[in-house]
Amino acid sequence: MPSKPIDLRSDTVTLPTPAMRTAMARAEVGDDVYGEDPTINRLEEFAAQRVGKAAAMFVPSGTMGNLCALLAHCQRGDEVIVGDASHIYNYEAGGASVVGGVAFHVLPNQPDGTIALDHLRAAVRWLDDPHCAETRLICLENTHNSCGGVALSPEYLASVAAFARERGLLVHLDGARMFNAAIALSVDVTELTRHVDSVMFCLSKGLAAPVGSVVCGDEAFIRRARRARKVLGGSMRQAGVIAAAGIVALETMVDRLEEDHANARMLAEGLAGFPQIVIEPERVQTNIVIFTLRDGISAEEFVVRLRERGVLMGDMGGGRVRAVTHYGIDAGDITETLAVAEEVLRAGSGVRDQGFPLH
Amino acid sequence: MPSKPIDLRSDTVTLPTPAMRTAMARAEVGDDVYGEDPTINRLEEFAAQRVGKAAAMFVPSGTMGNLCALLAHCQRGDEVIVGDASHIYNYEAGGASVVGGVAFHVLPNQPDGTIALDHLRAAVRWLDDPHCAETRLICLENTHNSCGGVALSPEYLASVAAFARERGLLVHLDGARMFNAAIALSVDVTELTRHVDSVMFCLSKGLAAPVGSVVCGDEAFIRRARRARKVLGGSMRQAGVIAAAGIVALETMVDRLEEDHANARMLAEGLAGFPQIVIEPERVQTNIVIFTLRDGISAEEFVVRLRERGVLMGDMGGGRVRAVTHYGIDAGDITETLAVAEEVLRAGSGVRDQGFPLH
Amino acid sequence: MPSKPIDLRSDTVTLPTPAMRTAMARAEVGDDVYGEDPTINRLEEFAAQRVGKAAAMFVPSGTMGNLCALLAHCQRGDEVIVGDASHIYNYEAGGASVVGGVAFHVLPNQPDGTIALDHLRAAVRWLDDPHCAETRLICLENTHNSCGGVALSPEYLASVAAFARERGLLVHLDGARMFNAAIALSVDVTELTRHVDSVMFCLSKGLAAPVGSVVCGDEAFIRRARRARKVLGGSMRQAGVIAAAGIVALETMVDRLEEDHANARMLAEGLAGFPQIVIEPERVQTNIVIFTLRDGISAEEFVVRLRERGVLMGDMGGGRVRAVTHYGIDAGDITETLAVAEEVLRAGSGVRDQGFPLH
Amino acid sequence: MPSKPIDLRSDTVTLPTPAMRTAMARAEVGDDVYGEDPTINRLEEFAAQRVGKAAAMFVPSGTMGNLCALLAHCQRGDEVIVGDASHIYNYEAGGASVVGGVAFHVLPNQPDGTIALDHLRAAVRWLDDPHCAETRLICLENTHNSCGGVALSPEYLASVAAFARERGLLVHLDGARMFNAAIALSVDVTELTRHVDSVMFCLSKGLAAPVGSVVCGDEAFIRRARRARKVLGGSMRQAGVIAAAGIVALETMVDRLEEDHANARMLAEGLAGFPQIVIEPERVQTNIVIFTLRDGISAEEFVVRLRERGVLMGDMGGGRVRAVTHYGIDAGDITETLAVAEEVLRAGSGVRDQGFPLH
Repeated sequence: MPSKPIDLRSDTVTLPTPAMRTAMARAEVGDDVYGEDPTINRLEEFAAQRVGKAAAMFVPSGTMGNLCALLAHCQRGDEVIVGDASHIYNYEAGGASVVGGVAFHVLPNQPDGTIALDHLRAAVRWLDDPHCAETRLICLENTHNSCGGVALSPEYLASVAAFARERGLLVHLDGARMFNAAIALSVDVTELTRHVDSVMFCLSKGLAAPVGSVVCGDEAFIRRARRARKVLGGSMRQAGVIAAAGIVALETMVDRLEEDHANARMLAEGLAGFPQIVIEPERVQTNIVIFTLRDGISAEEFVVRLRERGVLMGDMGGGRVRAVTHYGIDAGDITETLAVAEEVLRAGSGVRDQGFPLH
Repeated sequence: MPSKPIDLRSDTVTLPTPAMRTAMARAEVGDDVYGEDPTINRLEEFAAQRVGKAAAMFVPSGTMGNLCALLAHCQRGDEVIVGDASHIYNYEAGGASVVGGVAFHVLPNQPDGTIALDHLRAAVRWLDDPHCAETRLICLENTHNSCGGVALSPEYLASVAAFARERGLLVHLDGARMFNAAIALSVDVTELTRHVDSVMFCLSKGLAAPVGSVVCGDEAFIRRARRARKVLGGSMRQAGVIAAAGIVALETMVDRLEEDHANARMLAEGLAGFPQIVIEPERVQTNIVIFTLRDGISAEEFVVRLRERGVLMGDMGGGRVRAVTHYGIDAGDITETLAVAEEVLRAGSGVRDQGFPLH
Repeated sequence: MPSKPIDLRSDTVTLPTPAMRTAMARAEVGDDVYGEDPTINRLEEFAAQRVGKAAAMFVPSGTMGNLCALLAHCQRGDEVIVGDASHIYNYEAGGASVVGGVAFHVLPNQPDGTIALDHLRAAVRWLDDPHCAETRLICLENTHNSCGGVALSPEYLASVAAFARERGLLVHLDGARMFNAAIALSVDVTELTRHVDSVMFCLSKGLAAPVGSVVCGDEAFIRRARRARKVLGGSMRQAGVIAAAGIVALETMVDRLEEDHANARMLAEGLAGFPQIVIEPERVQTNIVIFTLRDGISAEEFVVRLRERGVLMGDMGGGRVRAVTHYGIDAGDITETLAVAEEVLRAGSGVRDQGFPLH
Repeated sequence: MPSKPIDLRSDTVTLPTPAMRTAMARAEVGDDVYGEDPTINRLEEFAAQRVGKAAAMFVPSGTMGNLCALLAHCQRGDEVIVGDASHIYNYEAGGASVVGGVAFHVLPNQPDGTIALDHLRAAVRWLDDPHCAETRLICLENTHNSCGGVALSPEYLASVAAFARERGLLVHLDGARMFNAAIALSVDVTELTRHVDSVMFCLSKGLAAPVGSVVCGDEAFIRRARRARKVLGGSMRQAGVIAAAGIVALETMVDRLEEDHANARMLAEGLAGFPQIVIEPERVQTNIVIFTLRDGISAEEFVVRLRERGVLMGDMGGGRVRAVTHYGIDAGDITETLAVAEEVLRAGSGVRDQGFPLH
């Protein structure tokens, strides 16, 4: 049993680095509602430039970032195309429908995280028929969480963007883990963002900032997004204290995502060696490892048994287990995790299987 | 070419019968907003009793009936399970999301119009996780329009109801063409409604009333539905003039749906004789005939060519054509339709294919 | 005690004329969802031309007409200025806020039904401050129901319109009883509608059609209003049956509103003769008579006592009583009403006073 | 001209204290979405206990705190009573209507910040009439910002609470500056909160924390509020870093509000000495000073001239100017402000007057 728990439930559990804590303690701040917080302003400029957009807005969460983007793009009665395994559709409490009068049009996510272009073509509503909400926006997710952290390629993004332009639609990218995708694909992140009208990415998760995400797009979009943020209550005062950590995250934590990917691959390969575990390690591109269990033991029980031994993974429901590597998990932790897993698998049994949402 | 067009686009085009017109002209009326329209009151009592529910409410359309039901069952932030081919999801402009803050959870419709119980079981959200909208309601459609007018059986409805009760969910039936289902299955309509918490059925469509639908359920539900109808602007004044036709529809037009079903079967069997047409006539259970065309001619062009010759069918998109029989269409019209179809199919060609919503 | 009740609660209780019943029985109809109901089309053209707008849309109620107009003008997050005594604000269940994400900005109605221009000037929100919903629309009501059926003059409407144009705002007229205003002011109704961007008027109420109202405006507005009507479930099928009565109402019932006004004035003058009643008969311009009672008897009890004697009036709450004249009430009824009132006032006493909404 | 600007625009501009910065740098944190941030948990417990409620929830802003409370108390179609000068109604972008389907019922605020009980009594809607949204909640604001920082007394709060209980309504307190009220009234803050069902107070503003507010109420309410916070995107990850500052604020910054009140009174008394300024210094109870200017100079110009000389006040529109004292403003600053004001008032002139929202 490890001296402290090995927490592989999500990269959302990352703790701020010492440099972030120092930056927060020293941050120059002001009232951001008046636009006077210099650290917020610096982060927003930096983020916009980093993803190649004209403007950016800091928000307290990825969920709010996506919601502001959807509200800024869509009006009451518009329709948004989302993947059936997407985070926006499944784990953001239905926000755009619940508070924004926006209807979701749900298309299947392929195992590689994409939505097939054929499905998009067939799905776009007849623009002038009042029976149908008007299609306005396509949402993509990169990396795609529930599809196992797979990265959408620049080529795919370009093809969706071309289709969208042809049909007068917009594209929003839920890029909560977008830097993982860029690292995995060895491309600059702008190769992933240049094709979309707006993008949200998280400073927390793999980048380890304690709080916050950023939405980027053109200036008119960001102006509308700021109105959306205000009505939702997401405008903060001296938020530079947290933005300071976000700047450190963007400056220093992107390249090290490589380590998380290596650790995830190491974990996947180790797990593949257990006969009770079904996984294709070569499909693990970033920091998310998803696998299922053969009969001997249920996903739910496996997760419970690991936890008793100090290793935390997530039961996704449907027999799937998820493990996520991140800042704070090193190769030694993976070795230890595999040892614990082996121990658990030597036992067995079976109970009811119900997971919970993983982010 | 027929002397007057043979309109098979939908049973929504039915014209009121002479008896309905007489009833409308003579209807005793009052201000229904005060609950004082005797004809409305009579229709609501009659309808409730007919479907075996405690209470009923008259509404100007099936879309409003479904919307009032969803708003009465669900609050802001709740989630409703709908089939991906359902009318509520596809052709009611996203109403419950757009105006009601209700999120749709979309599950595949099977070819027989059902939603698989396995899919329902996997779909119900974790009740206490704020990441997810709370599942509250399952919507079924009987007959199922886009699946070809198929009827859901009492057994299937019972099994969904049992699942729903077990999970604390409610069931709403979009029974726009529910009497067609009862006739096709040779059961009393209460066999279809007893399992559900609420049901909407149309007096227009096959029953030929000019305007109106009815929502039925228990008294508390109908009280909430009346509030929903008011906020939507669906409360009318001396609406007894149209309810009078609805009473005639319920009293005299249900049994004759049998004829529409026979005509639909006759049409399907005739079409099956053309090599360019793909259809399984034995799957035509009620008054809706859906088929596709082989290469020679596109669905769109087929519909255009028929129209030029006085026969109207509907292009559903995706290469599918729909024809609906109804009051006003007799066996002679079907014979003539088949003759015209044969004429058109002897020609051929191909253009762009884009349908429009059919109701 | 009159042989049948004298119902002065509202002009919403009017029954259709024989000519309307005949028109309904003979109406040529079609499926209005396809735009194929000739009677609906005729009514919409007639109504648009009558009020001097480019286009019109038939709706099942005045509440839906106002709601469609507000949804067509305003998007989620916009703000609408309404009078604090207006029907839209008080008696339409908060529709635009409840289903449309529109915020109300409430300004005092003056006793003459207007909103003071000074109040409008002070109220328009700073356009670019995200703290405030953006002001988009001003709603006026003519005649103004709760202010006693007073008519807003063309001059006042012009001045509000001028202010609105200057500030980039739109103006909607709730003209439920607009023809009463035109008759009272002896102007063509277009003098009242030319200044506003949209108008709703009722075919029911004083014009006596059983069901329906019309929204008028430019073509782009009506296109958006049609989308709003669809999502609310207000699109009907063979609605020509009721539109036929609406055409009769517009053609034959407008000029006779004069009689209702004369009867109202007669009632007001009679009531002014009773020492227990407070009323200024010269302020009764149209068909609505509002008065209060001095100590001797409460409004509530007065209404109850009248009802026991076959005369129905409305208790508005706050000690106010409302009586409305309409088609079906003649001078003899007024004489009888005054006799009954005298009888009641000779008695006296006092109970709790709670009214209910009057329309 | 002061060496650095004297910023009296709002107490929202307060900067974190050194102790707060230290606390932030050292905060023990975890993933609050899993409920595992010990500092958040500590703040929520502390805050709940401090105001005498069973539970509490941290939110990124006062606006979100109020919005979560309204969404937790009210469902789609409910109505909330607010004062016409309240922050919720005027400066929170219409949130509850815009995103929550809640209608506002607006009653006049008296100069002392209260809503008259007579107005409340007359305003509560007839509970069972579908014409009206159902009244559910009364919102009060303490201290009342736009009414000049006046404090509502425990007696007034008790009387509103008694009325609410009698009518089955709930009461929410926007206590953004509630501790200022408690200090001004020399009562424990629980004397202000015991009468209400929920309360929101800010850790920023006078208490000087950089970010955050807290909503308190019973456990079922807080559970619903957490769902509301999630759908709005207000759930944060390692938010303990900012909660740490909030704990310092609650522990160390409440008593010093007394100084701000003394400085505000000193400012008011000084301003009262200028003949061009209209103010009643005895009405200044807390840290907000509102005054108007006589003809010589407009509010707008006065504010501009002060700013040129390094003193920032807020133009509220309507000829009113607001100055707010806070942590960072001492008696010397007030002396200097009065000197600058005198200098400006010796000059004069007049331009257009348009203010902006002040918080």
